[in-house]
Amino acid sequence: MGGRTETVSPDNDITVDQMYVQYQIPQDAKRHFPVVMIHGCCLSGKSWEETPDGRMGWNTYFVQRNRPTYVVDQVSRARSGFDATVFNQVKAGTLPPSSLPSITQVSHQSSWNIFRFGLTFGQPFTNLQFPIAQVEGLYQQEIPDLNSLLPADNPTYTNLSTLAKSLDGAVLMGHSESGFFPQFSALVDTTKIKGLITLEHNCNVFTDVQIKTLAKIPQLIVFGDFIELFPQWVTANQSCTNYVARIKAAGGDITFIHLPDIGIHGNSHMMMLDKNNLQVADVVLDWIDKHVGKRGGGKQ
Amino acid sequence: MGGRTETVSPDNDITVDQMYVQYQIPQDAKRHFPVVMIHGCCLSGKSWEETPDGRMGWNTYFVQRNRPTYVVDQVSRARSGFDATVFNQVKAGTLPPSSLPSITQVSHQSSWNIFRFGLTFGQPFTNLQFPIAQVEGLYQQEIPDLNSLLPADNPTYTNLSTLAKSLDGAVLMGHSESGFFPQFSALVDTTKIKGLITLEHNCNVFTDVQIKTLAKIPQLIVFGDFIELFPQWVTANQSCTNYVARIKAAGGDITFIHLPDIGIHGNSHMMMLDKNNLQVADVVLDWIDKHVGKRGGGKQ
Repeated sequence: MGGRTETVSPDNDITVDQMYVQYQIPQDAKRHFPVVMIHGCCLSGKSWEETPDGRMGWNTYFVQRNRPTYVVDQVSRARSGFDATVFNQVKAGTLPPSSLPSITQVSHQSSWNIFRFGLTFGQPFTNLQFPIAQVEGLYQQEIPDLNSLLPADNPTYTNLSTLAKSLDGAVLMGHSESGFFPQFSALVDTTKIKGLITLEHNCNVFTDVQIKTLAKIPQLIVFGDFIELFPQWVTANQSCTNYVARIKAAGGDITFIHLPDIGIHGNSHMMMLDKNNLQVADVVLDWIDKHVGKRGGGKQ
Repeated sequence: MGGRTETVSPDNDITVDQMYVQYQIPQDAKRHFPVVMIHGCCLSGKSWEETPDGRMGWNTYFVQRNRPTYVVDQVSRARSGFDATVFNQVKAGTLPPSSLPSITQVSHQSSWNIFRFGLTFGQPFTNLQFPIAQVEGLYQQEIPDLNSLLPADNPTYTNLSTLAKSLDGAVLMGHSESGFFPQFSALVDTTKIKGLITLEHNCNVFTDVQIKTLAKIPQLIVFGDFIELFPQWVTANQSCTNYVARIKAAGGDITFIHLPDIGIHGNSHMMMLDKNNLQVADVVLDWIDKHVGKRGGGKQ
C-alpha cells in the first residue's frame, strides 16, 4: 500500500515509499479491532512469525485469539523495498560516496547487548527467556536497516495511519525502533487509531500540543527484564516514565508495565520470541480488551 | 534458513546468505508434496500472495488444494536481507564507488514490455488477462534487485536443495529470473527434489552431464500469451524448446506448455497475478498430480 512515483530517468518511473502488509483475518473476529504489528531495527515482519525454536509467534497467536493481524515491513525494509537510486548514482560517479546512507547491520555481539541476552557475549542470563540455544535463528532474521535513507517524516507513519483508516479502526503496535511509530502515525492523523502499544522504546519528547493529541488514545508501554543492568535501557525506561507522566497529566489513559513487576521474569528485548512469548502476548491482549475494547464499544 | 557468518570488524559478526521462508501447511495435505515458490527479478515472495486487484494468489490456492506451500524470498532480497558491507565500505572510502553492485529497479515503463502488458506503455492488449486497472499494485511489489552482489554460485540454490531435503521431498517452482533456480538447485543435489517447474525463463544451456542429472526429475515449463510479439520472449521460448529437446533425448519426462496452445489466452508474464490465475494454477497442479504424484507413489 501507499507509495509515490519517482522519475529516475526519462521514461523510467519507479514506485517508492510503499509498505508491504501481510494479513490474516480469523473466521470469527468477534468485533475485535485489527492489530497492526511493526518490527524493529534491522528486522522485518518475520519478528512476529514463528520463533527461532519453532514455536508459535504473535501473528498466529493473535489470530487464534480472534484478532485480525496486519504485519508490515517498514518502508525501506524487506518486502517494502527501498529507493536504490542514490546507490546507482554513486556507482555511476554522479554523486560522491558520502551521499550513501549509513546502512545498519546489527552484529551477533551487539545483539547480545541490545537485546539483553547477557552482559557478556556467549554468556546468557541464567533465567533468560530468550531461546538462546537457537539464537542463530535470530541472526538469520537480522537484515540491513536503510532507514537513514528516509526523510524525518518517515513515510511509514502516513502509511500506518492510512492503513488504520482503511481498516475502519486498528490498534498499532511497535517494537524498539518502531516503538513510537504508533504515536507518530497518530500525530499524522488520529482517525481510526484505537490504541497505541509500545514494546521497549526510548520514548520521544513531544510538545504539549502533541501530548494533548496523543492523550486521546489509550496507550500501553511494556518493558522486559534486566533493564537495570544496561545503561541504555535504564535511560529508555526513564524516558518512558517521563512520557507516561505527561500523558497522565493531560488526562490520558496510559499503562506502563515493567514485566517483572507483574511477576513475569527473564524477558529479553525480543519478548515476542521469548519462551514465554504467549504469556506476554496475553498481557497485551488483556490490555486491549480492557482499554480499547471492541467495535461498537464494550470493554471488559 | 541457511546462511553463513561473516566477520565485518573485530568482535562484529553478521549472518549473510540466509533465506527467508514463509509456509502454510493445510490440515489435510493428503500425502501431497510441498510446493516451494520462488519469485522473479525485482520482486519478492509477495508475487504469490493476493493479486493487485484483491483476488486469491497461488500461495492460498495451493493450500486450498491441500498442498503445503513454502514461499521464499531469494537470498539478497526482501526478508532474506543482503550483505551491506560493501556499501558501508564505499561510504567510508575504503573501497571505490565502482565496487558497488548494480542494483536493478524495474520501471513502470519496462514492466509493460518485460511483463507483456502491451506493445506501448499505457496501451494494454485488448484480451490481456493481467488486471491492468490495478497495475499500481504490481509497481508497489517491485523492489530493488541486488542479485549482482551474489557469487555465480547463488546461495539460494543450496538453500533450496537444503529446504527440499528438510521437507523430505518438494516440488520447486521458479518464475522468470528464478525460472531455472529449481534446475540449479537440483545440480547442487537432486536428493528429495521431486519436480522442477519453470514459469517463463530464458532456458540456460547445460553440459551433457548436467542434462543427464536433470533428466532424472520430472519437469514442467510454462509460457503465456503474446510471446511472438516480443523478440526477447521469442528467444526465451526458443531456448526452452532446445532445452526440452535435450532433456527428452536424455530420456527425461518434460512437459512444455504454451498456454494459448491449450486454449488459455491473454496471459502476461505475471500469470500468477492474471485474472485467470487459478486456471493457470490448475494446469500446474494437474501436471504435478500426473508427473510427480504423491508421497509413497500414486500418480493420477
